Amino acid sequence: MSRFAYVNGRFVRHGIASVHIEDRGYQFADGVYEVIALAGGRFVDLDLHLTRLERSLGELRIAKPMSDRALAMVLGNLARRNGIRDGSVYLQITRGVAPRDFAFPANAEPQVVATARRARPVDPAALAQGVKAITIPDLRWARCDIKSVGLLPAAMGKQAAREAGAYEAWQYDRDGFVTEGTSSNAWIVTRDDELITRPPTHAILNGITRLVVIELAKAAGLRFVERPFTVEEALAAREAFVTSTTSFVMPITRLDDATIGDGKPGPFVGQLRARYLSHMARIAGAGA
Amino acid sequence: MSRFAYVNGRFVRHGIASVHIEDRGYQFADGVYEVIALAGGRFVDLDLHLTRLERSLGELRIAKPMSDRALAMVLGNLARRNGIRDGSVYLQITRGVAPRDFAFPANAEPQVVATARRARPVDPAALAQGVKAITIPDLRWARCDIKSVGLLPAAMGKQAAREAGAYEAWQYDRDGFVTEGTSSNAWIVTRDDELITRPPTHAILNGITRLVVIELAKAAGLRFVERPFTVEEALAAREAFVTSTTSFVMPITRLDDATIGDGKPGPFVGQLRARYLSHMARIAGAGA
Repeated sequence: MSRFAYVNGRFVRHGIASVHIEDRGYQFADGVYEVIALAGGRFVDLDLHLTRLERSLGELRIAKPMSDRALAMVLGNLARRNGIRDGSVYLQITRGVAPRDFAFPANAEPQVVATARRARPVDPAALAQGVKAITIPDLRWARCDIKSVGLLPAAMGKQAAREAGAYEAWQYDRDGFVTEGTSSNAWIVTRDDELITRPPTHAILNGITRLVVIELAKAAGLRFVERPFTVEEALAAREAFVTSTTSFVMPITRLDDATIGDGKPGPFVGQLRARYLSHMARIAGAGA
Repeated sequence: MSRFAYVNGRFVRHGIASVHIEDRGYQFADGVYEVIALAGGRFVDLDLHLTRLERSLGELRIAKPMSDRALAMVLGNLARRNGIRDGSVYLQITRGVAPRDFAFPANAEPQVVATARRARPVDPAALAQGVKAITIPDLRWARCDIKSVGLLPAAMGKQAAREAGAYEAWQYDRDGFVTEGTSSNAWIVTRDDELITRPPTHAILNGITRLVVIELAKAAGLRFVERPFTVEEALAAREAFVTSTTSFVMPITRLDDATIGDGKPGPFVGQLRARYLSHMARIAGAGA
């Protein structure tokens, strides 16, 4: 748990950190966020996160509250004040505080809130055996490429996963194609050793870990194909996994009631996780 | 503007009314709301609003924080403290405050926030001439029947309307059928004098004013048909209008660049608005 939070220019004790009841984030989900990993006191791919943040803000026409450099300083200070070198920071920017009205207020000032948390230890059994995912219909809106705080359907999906004893829920569109997990991107490896993940259209959030793993896979000479895949293809896959900022690369070995491949994490996910951890270690090693 | 807000058991000055940054309403849009009109110091159809609120909470499995009777007392006190007899109260209930995690927290206490505002005077020109609506694709999630605070697509739609000089935006689904306005239900009257509005499936919010107007139309002997209608049908309609808690019954006389009917509010909308105002006057008259 974060001891200090950042709220609009001040570091405040977490317990009393608050926003106004007419913050549009609270009344309209009118805001965006990023979660950025820390490794050895350094941010992992901060530039990619800030680029995506700027895109999300731009799509919603929320003014950028400060420069990337200033944001990076705020987040770095927050991590240090909380004594966190390995973990993540959460950054939320909303359109501002204004009397409740659906249309955008004319002169609202964007609100900036950030918290930091320590990395949770990875469950060794989860990594050794892989985890389970369930499949659920994708109920979300048509602009999942915008990293908005309108996360209610994702929260409902994750809850469904938890209740099924699963780590994640893979959402599928009305044509039966997997879009993504509720807080991760979905990948499979076919029987032909093709590594597949869905292209970044409006239907998914283009994960930063997803982007980095694509580059790592290409560098490793793996056969990578960016295309939609169905739940049926996933059930018939040799391997399956998810990528996210906080779980990195996590093997999925059960999908609903079926076993994926031989039921153990395979060589693709093993190699890609190792390469991703090396990527983080390089960043951490570049620290002071 | 409300002078006092209600926040979790206390009446506080509006300017300092706040919620925690980890309120799930702020981070996940994990909450629901109601807007209830006040006429002559009495709530308009409060029972219907509280029934719908309970349904929204139930669908999201958010615990009901207090009885209907207690909620009604809170809202009544709020209106009185703000000296508001004609206007509306806004009530928001979120799942609670908890360390950020997509799945539902085990022991969060629902958070209750409410504000009150005076009725805005109705623009006589808008009523006399009718207002404009634009049509936009419906980008929202698949459970619009739940009155959640995940209103970002509705806010974007209302903003598009405002920028087009329009009062409202009518959203249409992928088959070209109108779902509803961004904060109102959509109605048309055909050349055959059929009064039409879309049935309350998961695709729309079942408006309380919508429900009351249906009853008023039936009582008036109007030919009412509950079915989806297309944008094309709306363009060819004799009349069009919207219903909502705060605009009551509002004539639409322009849709995108087209004129509806003869470009003036017609007899159906005139009669239904009058009957709805009488409905409110009856409630107000029943006051002390």
